[in-house]
Amino acid sequence: MKNYYHEHTRFHLAIDCIIFGFDDERLKLLVIKRDFDPGKGQWSLMGGFLREEENIDDAAKRVLKNLTGLENIYLEQLFAYGEPKRDAAARVISVAYYALISTTKFKQQESTINAQWFPVDELPQLIFDHNQMVEKAILRLRRRAASKPIGFELLPTHFTLPQLQTLYESIYQHEIDKRNFRKKILSMNILEKLPEKDMTASKRGAFKYKFNPLKYNEFLNNGYHFELINNGN
Amino acid sequence: MKNYYHEHTRFHLAIDCIIFGFDDERLKLLVIKRDFDPGKGQWSLMGGFLREEENIDDAAKRVLKNLTGLENIYLEQLFAYGEPKRDAAARVISVAYYALISTTKFKQQESTINAQWFPVDELPQLIFDHNQMVEKAILRLRRRAASKPIGFELLPTHFTLPQLQTLYESIYQHEIDKRNFRKKILSMNILEKLPEKDMTASKRGAFKYKFNPLKYNEFLNNGYHFELINNGN
Repeated sequence: MKNYYHEHTRFHLAIDCIIFGFDDERLKLLVIKRDFDPGKGQWSLMGGFLREEENIDDAAKRVLKNLTGLENIYLEQLFAYGEPKRDAAARVISVAYYALISTTKFKQQESTINAQWFPVDELPQLIFDHNQMVEKAILRLRRRAASKPIGFELLPTHFTLPQLQTLYESIYQHEIDKRNFRKKILSMNILEKLPEKDMTASKRGAFKYKFNPLKYNEFLNNGYHFELINNGN
Repeated sequence: MKNYYHEHTRFHLAIDCIIFGFDDERLKLLVIKRDFDPGKGQWSLMGGFLREEENIDDAAKRVLKNLTGLENIYLEQLFAYGEPKRDAAARVISVAYYALISTTKFKQQESTINAQWFPVDELPQLIFDHNQMVEKAILRLRRRAASKPIGFELLPTHFTLPQLQTLYESIYQHEIDKRNFRKKILSMNILEKLPEKDMTASKRGAFKYKFNPLKYNEFLNNGYHFELINNGN
């Protein structure tokens, strides 16, 4: 049996993490400046190599935790990248994952790494095929956020409706009609209105809400579909 | 530089192909009976190992061509599977791809392999995590076929509207209203009506059509979206 496998080539397997964040204004991406070769001094996604006995999802969680200190965050496998020359120094297959975090929850863990948030529409040139990974991740995020409430992962636990709307506008890069948006999201009955108000953005203030997963399950069980943005937008 | 990579483990990388076909009645899956270990005698997806200098998409095309003789067919990367124990004999990461072919175009190439079509709702137990791959591929196919005309890849070049409808019914596993379906697909103006009729299914016969990619591009350029099945179905 061993011989059957051993006649075949083995490859390095990397995990690269596309980490999206939202800072109340814009959709951002967390990238690092590499202080190691290959590509020392270049901007890069946070990544790491798969370990001997490690599940690939777990490897992605480890990479993410090393950089952000965060656990139990939204993480989804995106795509496997396998161009022979994608990394000139060695043959490495990379499985890309994307994660959604609220920038307010992020505290850089590894002090040796220089990490920085960039707005997704003002990204620097990244190493290897990392820009290509990010482009694919943005398209995936748009599809997912239209049909599942994953956008809430990008917000603080308590948020206002204008914040939620700004988030969706920054994901889709276009303005959304305020009245329709409020009507649509409130009609789903998946948000819980809180007594507190945010007074920073307007004189009247804006009530804070939190997402209610139980009500969302009820919503699904009643045969409804989350569809905050029209298909194709 | 070499040392940086060489301290990390390397892995076997397999490509597994989920091959969907349509035989005018049901959505089917092409699987092989393994005549080699591990798993000799078990049903399995057609797969192979990535080669030293090979792009992973090209590896999937090679695997597919070896079995079916077909090239230029619809092929899409599905997901990377990396459980440490998914193959008990060795650590193998598998990147699964799914392909769509018309069963009429399929002619088995490798005479040493015993390949067989199974209806997707009557699949045998497959080796490793292959059933799990197929389940994911069916969900992906449903999403894609709702918003892109990939279903046409599963039909012969000339087909009738009842054939197209049966195909969509077999993908979504539920009946579709005939009048709405005809109206919707014809209103897109992406089919070309042919002079020939298929006389096998009814006395009056059914006109044959072919998919017109140029008209489809026009349709897209006019800002329309292909949406043959309602979202969520």
